[in-house]
Amino acid sequence: MTLTIEDCRYAGDRTFRIADAPTSAHMTKGDRAKCTELTDENRVVMGELQDRLYADGREGLVILLQAMDAAGKDSTIRHVMSGMNPQGIDVYGFKQPTARELAHDYLWRAARCLPERGKIALFNRSYYEDVLVVRVDGLWHGYRMPKRCLDCSEDEFFSRRFGQIRDFEEHLYQNGYHVLKIFLNVGLDEQRKRLLARIDDESKNWKFSASDLAEREHWDAYMSAYEAAINATATKHAPWYVVPADQKWHARYLVSQAVVNVLKDMDPHYPEVPAGEKDELAACKARLLKE
Amino acid sequence: MTLTIEDCRYAGDRTFRIADAPTSAHMTKGDRAKCTELTDENRVVMGELQDRLYADGREGLVILLQAMDAAGKDSTIRHVMSGMNPQGIDVYGFKQPTARELAHDYLWRAARCLPERGKIALFNRSYYEDVLVVRVDGLWHGYRMPKRCLDCSEDEFFSRRFGQIRDFEEHLYQNGYHVLKIFLNVGLDEQRKRLLARIDDESKNWKFSASDLAEREHWDAYMSAYEAAINATATKHAPWYVVPADQKWHARYLVSQAVVNVLKDMDPHYPEVPAGEKDELAACKARLLKE
Repeated sequence: MTLTIEDCRYAGDRTFRIADAPTSAHMTKGDRAKCTELTDENRVVMGELQDRLYADGREGLVILLQAMDAAGKDSTIRHVMSGMNPQGIDVYGFKQPTARELAHDYLWRAARCLPERGKIALFNRSYYEDVLVVRVDGLWHGYRMPKRCLDCSEDEFFSRRFGQIRDFEEHLYQNGYHVLKIFLNVGLDEQRKRLLARIDDESKNWKFSASDLAEREHWDAYMSAYEAAINATATKHAPWYVVPADQKWHARYLVSQAVVNVLKDMDPHYPEVPAGEKDELAACKARLLKE
Repeated sequence: MTLTIEDCRYAGDRTFRIADAPTSAHMTKGDRAKCTELTDENRVVMGELQDRLYADGREGLVILLQAMDAAGKDSTIRHVMSGMNPQGIDVYGFKQPTARELAHDYLWRAARCLPERGKIALFNRSYYEDVLVVRVDGLWHGYRMPKRCLDCSEDEFFSRRFGQIRDFEEHLYQNGYHVLKIFLNVGLDEQRKRLLARIDDESKNWKFSASDLAEREHWDAYMSAYEAAINATATKHAPWYVVPADQKWHARYLVSQAVVNVLKDMDPHYPEVPAGEKDELAACKARLLKE
């Protein structure tokens, strides 16, 4: 294993250049079994840590997953998170916003989905769509907002949003949350292969949409938008992980490692029973044994 | 009318001192009819502006009302806001948080209630309770949060919250909202009278709670907490209005004036019909007339 999850980490301490970010670590076929084994191990560790997090109830975790189409978001969730107790994790998808969501500030629909402390919320896409597709497709020009909000350059508009997002994530950190942000970095060629597979394999047809091709045509614009967003919002308390995604089994291992690491950092503990209550527990035990 | 609503305004440009803030403008009995008349007029203006705000759909308004018990929050809402079309305004009360609300960051329950653009949300109490009662009663010490969030002085803890609130309100402004914050400033003696009336008048008994007296005993601590909160969060885009509340009919007039002013500042317009659509309207009219 040459590439570690730490190599993928951006926390505001170095510049992220999309052109330099590998979409594959070129692992050999022989690495595959090892990666899968390590992912399995991580799933067990994750399950244990999640149980403690839930019992502890002091901290919450937001994991968000961003990527181009067919980068493997859904399958990563299925493979990496399936060791979790569903009672302690909720997954929210953020597709095209509804009219009601568009009528609110763009953070509103995500803020509603924030987890209770002790729980994990996994955002499959997130409010980062509002600085990605909204930027690339120029959707913000058509927003029903006052002039003062729109009368500015594209750079100004999105700089302001980056600032709002930094404030939002800092607020979360200060209130007992960790935010883990993952960009599954798939290559243009690999996406082509996967989209073709979605067309050729009937059981995958439902995952394909003609609009995926339209977005694919804006590939470079998306990469620039990701670069800008990641550089502006990678902070110590809400780092980004840019994970090579061409080799799915390797990406899954890296993501599982990122989740394990943040849970270990949070270091959840089962609540300690105060001395007084321990006596009570002993008394209860005695009563039950007498029955 | 010697005291205007502008005199009550704090927007970060001057220091607010609770000791200097009058709880009454000592209006004469003769002023009462005039105040009531002006409030009636403002209600009509408000209704017209709200209709335009709703049709325009570009900006939203959050009005929040804070005060000690019996300062007149409920009756102010009833008297001042009853000219509004209920379709365009929602009132939310923020009493003691539920277990589910406490398990989230303290802004969560308010963020969920943010209005769509075009609408008004009126918060009867608000997230400011989290820097008022939570501070005075020291509730934050018992919060189930990680050590890093609680291991600090009271001043540090609430300074951080003030910063979070400023960021939150600035985010709202940048996304097409205005935030109007009103503190109904009632005097200690006047509160005593009103609480006694709630006990003596059976039809008002339901509004009285013994816990009101407990909070009353912390009067000075509350006044300090209000002073600190208002000074830290009075900004150009989210100003505070400290309204003398001992004379209810005068307070209502001032509040109605603050609401009218913010709606006038927002300057909502009925959407203009583009030239092309005007032809369509004419065609539709012709068809209807032919029937």
